[in-house]
This record gives sequence, C-alpha cells and structure tokens, in this order.
Amino acid sequence: MKAALLRAGQVVVDDVPDPTPSLGQVLVSVKACGICGSDLHFVKHGAEMLDLADQMGGMPDFGDARTTLDRDVYMGHEFAGEILEVGPDTIAPPEGTLVTSVPAMVGLGGVEPLVYSNRLPCGYGEMMLLSAPLVQTVPNGLEAKRAALTEPMAVGLHAVNKSGISQREGALVLGCGPIGIAVIAALRLRGVEPIVASDYSPRRRELASAMGAHEVVDPADEPSFEAWRRAAPGKPVVIFEAVGVPGMINEVLRSAPLHSRILVVGVCMGADTIIPFWAISKELNIQFALAYDPQEFNDSLKAIAEGDIDVGPVITGEVGIDGVPGAFEQLADPERHCKILVVPTPGG
Amino acid sequence: MKAALLRAGQVVVDDVPDPTPSLGQVLVSVKACGICGSDLHFVKHGAEMLDLADQMGGMPDFGDARTTLDRDVYMGHEFAGEILEVGPDTIAPPEGTLVTSVPAMVGLGGVEPLVYSNRLPCGYGEMMLLSAPLVQTVPNGLEAKRAALTEPMAVGLHAVNKSGISQREGALVLGCGPIGIAVIAALRLRGVEPIVASDYSPRRRELASAMGAHEVVDPADEPSFEAWRRAAPGKPVVIFEAVGVPGMINEVLRSAPLHSRILVVGVCMGADTIIPFWAISKELNIQFALAYDPQEFNDSLKAIAEGDIDVGPVITGEVGIDGVPGAFEQLADPERHCKILVVPTPGG
Repeated sequence: MKAALLRAGQVVVDDVPDPTPSLGQVLVSVKACGICGSDLHFVKHGAEMLDLADQMGGMPDFGDARTTLDRDVYMGHEFAGEILEVGPDTIAPPEGTLVTSVPAMVGLGGVEPLVYSNRLPCGYGEMMLLSAPLVQTVPNGLEAKRAALTEPMAVGLHAVNKSGISQREGALVLGCGPIGIAVIAALRLRGVEPIVASDYSPRRRELASAMGAHEVVDPADEPSFEAWRRAAPGKPVVIFEAVGVPGMINEVLRSAPLHSRILVVGVCMGADTIIPFWAISKELNIQFALAYDPQEFNDSLKAIAEGDIDVGPVITGEVGIDGVPGAFEQLADPERHCKILVVPTPGG
Repeated sequence: MKAALLRAGQVVVDDVPDPTPSLGQVLVSVKACGICGSDLHFVKHGAEMLDLADQMGGMPDFGDARTTLDRDVYMGHEFAGEILEVGPDTIAPPEGTLVTSVPAMVGLGGVEPLVYSNRLPCGYGEMMLLSAPLVQTVPNGLEAKRAALTEPMAVGLHAVNKSGISQREGALVLGCGPIGIAVIAALRLRGVEPIVASDYSPRRRELASAMGAHEVVDPADEPSFEAWRRAAPGKPVVIFEAVGVPGMINEVLRSAPLHSRILVVGVCMGADTIIPFWAISKELNIQFALAYDPQEFNDSLKAIAEGDIDVGPVITGEVGIDGVPGAFEQLADPERHCKILVVPTPGG
C-alpha cells in the first residue's frame, strides 16, 4: 500500500507492506486523517524530542515502544476509517463500519501508541490496524472527515475538564491554532462565559469566533490580558496557553492575575525561561495537559456527531497521500490553514 | 531606639526615631524576631526583586507601599512582642500582653506589609507598631521566642493546605532549610505518611527527622526520587520544592512521577530554565505558594502554643540587635544554623 512516512528527516511517500490483522485487531481503510502540529514539530525536532523523553526515563505508559529515527517512522494519529477485515477470533463491528479510535494498539506486550511508530502503519497511509477493543463506531451518519476531528477536539475537551473551570469563571485562550480552537469549542460546550481568544492571525481569529469565542483580540493591537480585563472586569479567569513557543509561559506568569490557574496545552518543545518569582508572588497554578482519556475521546466523537460541536470550519484543506509532504510545508502559514485532512482515496 | 536596617546594600545598626501609635495601632517592645532567608536574599538582590515586581505591575495587594532602596529599609517579619502602649481610641489587649501578628499594617490607605518598609519599623528593632485588629494574643504561656516562629511555620502550613494532600498520598520534601522544615512539621501534623525529606546537609537532615520526617536522604548518596520510590513504592506523591535555586524546578519536572502535584515554596528569585515537554508529557501540576492567610497564621500559633509542633529544635542561635549584621553572614552556612532569633533586650 501507499503511505507517507518520515525517512531521514524528510516526509516521503512510498510503498509499504500491507498490514494484516492478528488476534484483537481490525484492518481499516483510512478515510481521513488530520495533520497535527506535533507531527510538523517531530519532523524538524524528532531527535531532540526523543532525547528529552529518554532523559526523563522514557515516555510514561509507552512501554517498550521506543521510536528510532534510524528507521522509517509512520505518523498520523487523527483518523477515521472503514473496517476491511476483522482479525481471527476477534470481536469487532462488521466489515464496512466506519470507526475511529484513540491512537493506540493494545497488545500482550502493552500499549503501543499509533503516533510515531517504526512498526505499525498510522493514519497517513491507505490502511492501518486498530485495536478491536478500542474502536468506536462513528454514530449518527457522521462523515469520516468530521469523525477524524474527534482526536484533536478531545485534546481541547481534556484541557477544559482538567482545568475544572466553573460557571463563575471565564476563559482567556492564547493562540487559536488547532489546539486553541479545540479548547474554545469545549469551553463553549461547557457554557463558559466569556471566552476571550487572542491570535495575531486574522484568519485564526475569525475561526475562533466561528467556534464560539465571545471576543477575539489581536495582541498586536491590545495585550491579551488587557482585553480580558476589558471584556470581563473583575471576573476570575482560567488561562489556556495554546501557543507553545518559548517565552509564552513566562509572559503569562508576568501578566496573569493573582491566584490564576493556567492550563498549558501548547507544547513548547525546547527549553524555556521563566521567572518563578512572578508565579510565587501571585500564587499561580500551572497545570500541564496532554491528550485525553478514552471517555473524553468518546465524548468528543459524540459532541461532533450530534452537532454540539461543528468542526466544519476547522477543516481548511484536503490532500491525497501524495500531497502530504507539501501539506507539511503549507501548515507553517497560519493564514492559509487550520487543519488539513489527508484523504487517501478521494471519493472512494 | 536601636534598629538593624538595610542601608545602601549593607545591614547596619543605627538609632532611629521611636515609633508612636496612632488610631488603630499598638506599640510593642519586640521580644524576638526570626531572621528569614528572604531577607538575606533581599539584601543581596533587592534591586532585582523590586524590578521584577515592577515588571508585573507591582506586588499584588501591596497598595502603594513601594519600597525603595534609596532610603533605609526596615526588615524583620517573624516577630513577637509585648504591648507597651495602645493608640488613641483603639481596642486592643492591655499593656504587657505578649502578642504576635501577620506582618502587615492596616490603614485607611490600604494594607502595608511589615516586611521591607521605608516607613514603618519592623522586627529587627527594639520597638515596632502593629495593627490592633490583627494582633493575636500569644496563648498558653508560650514564650516569645517560640511565638516568633508562628510566621515561618505558617508558611509551611499554607503550602500543605494549598497542596490539598490527602491520606492516600505521601510527601517528598526537597530542601530542609526553614521552609522545608515548616512544611515537614505541617505534613506531620496532618498525618501524612511517609514524609521523605532530602538535603545535602547532615545537620538539616537531623532537624528534618526531629520535626517529623519518616525518612531523610542525602541526594549525594541517593537521588531524592529514588529514595521516595524505595520508601513508598507505588504511592502517589506530592512534591514540595523548598530549595529555591535555579535548576531545581526543572529537575523535579524531569524526575516526578506521572500526574504529580508540585508545590513550589522555595523562592528562586532569578530567571530559571524549564523543559515544558517533561511537564506536559506527565501532565504535572505546579502550584506556587507564598505566605499564608490570617486563619493559617492563627492555626500555626495555636499548634505551637499547644505543643502540636515543637519549634525548639528549629531555633539554633540568638543575637541582640548589634549581632544582626553578623547573623546575616552566618546564615549562609547550613551546617551552623536553621533559625537565628534577634532578641533586642536579652533577659528583658
């Protein structure tokens, strides 16, 4: 089959062996897979990320699935696909069912993430294997392209759940890329008011409004925290840092009001500098958030399928497998794209 | 009266005007005042601290009480004293009563901290003014020297309260200086088990044991987190960072178990470097903690007065006002001292 993969630092398209489902697995035809910003980062800084993971003793819960850049790396973890074949003695929905899944393969050796894998094809290919106990049938006639957004929207839902934000608090979302957008959608679903969102990009601010932000701000015109104070004077704020570039966390520490909670959902991969004195003086709380649990993944799928979250505006582009390398280039420009979907067999 | 104060970067002893109590104030004769590590830091890096405070728009809740290093600075915020005179039309305990107070002066202009003040004498002098509504009578015949420990012990109590640590969790305390010791005492009072404490200094480890640590470790012999895993395999841990030097927070991020809560109570004053990737990968939570609320201050006084916390071992030295400059030098050596008390009128 055809797949896009990371080889010697480059995203390339090549023919790879067709996967075959074993006990507990299903083979799916990938219908849509979103390109995640973390994949862009991994392509450029994969060695550094793997080294950082090693320094803390490996990624938690990742078992022995150590990824190496010395071999091809499969990527693509925001997928939906149609079941082609169910493994032997395996209980799963019938062939032809549209499904999605948390990006993980459960096996006798533990849980292996379907995120960066040397061994298992992921979503940037024509077919992939899923773990039968983890597959979720896409309900309500939802199309595959929207179902593929389950994963990134679950990231936002998880961050909002983790924040414990209450009705008496509002939210300031810094950064309206895919993660910020997912946070905004989840905040809106929870009834948080107001949601103030900031981004330098007009296109992203427009998207933030479409997804439920009550107020959007260009930090070049007005500092984000001033916009917050103007929009909701005196109201307690929970801050969602979804930019993930060096210096952002420290800027939040400097500007955040007394006793604020800060959810760090943007992934700043390198070293970053902070002034702890600011955080201490104001008794700030920083909760770092990653991914979601299976229940949140299912809640995200349900919210999309039932129309509680309209992911339509998030999808800004579509490519075939051959278009993946080019899409990685295009995503660097925030004016052009939010989420590009890889659709391995257009119209198929 | 005689007072030690900060003048042009040096701690000096000089004669200063006797304070006089106004409406809402009492004049006390200082009986004991602990020297706090933050004062040592302020003497060396005061300009930097004030500059950092300015950068975030001033210290929260400090009103207009902007301290300047261009004039003399009174210090000393861990005090107990005897009421000499009650201000006009002021309700307060009678003269001769031993009292302590949160280090703040309430006035019509707001709350002014009695920590670094250009205007109001603090605890490193023969006399000081307190805010009548804030004074707490020292109960149970507790001596002034122990009552002066109310403030630093309240810092530990606050950090432990703020952590929300439960019976199913244990604690790892990094650093056994005065703050770490206060944290250990508060953890012990709360029944937390085990309390594992680490410090390079044998004297401080000994003190940590005396104050209630179940296990002490020299990080030169065994990394603190390994000691924790050995002492309480599989038990969730709340980490108290009470060292406050650059690099400590990042080392905690690298080594902390998945989903840990980290209380930062050590004050790293300068810039610090962190790897957010570690915190994100493990969904860590960092709560920065400062000071205490009035109720916690009172709880601390009560715990000491009723013998629930024995602060005796914490007091390792005693000087008169003339000895303050020398005591600041001595406190740099962890082998010699934990808490030095300033006793303005020995035997008096």
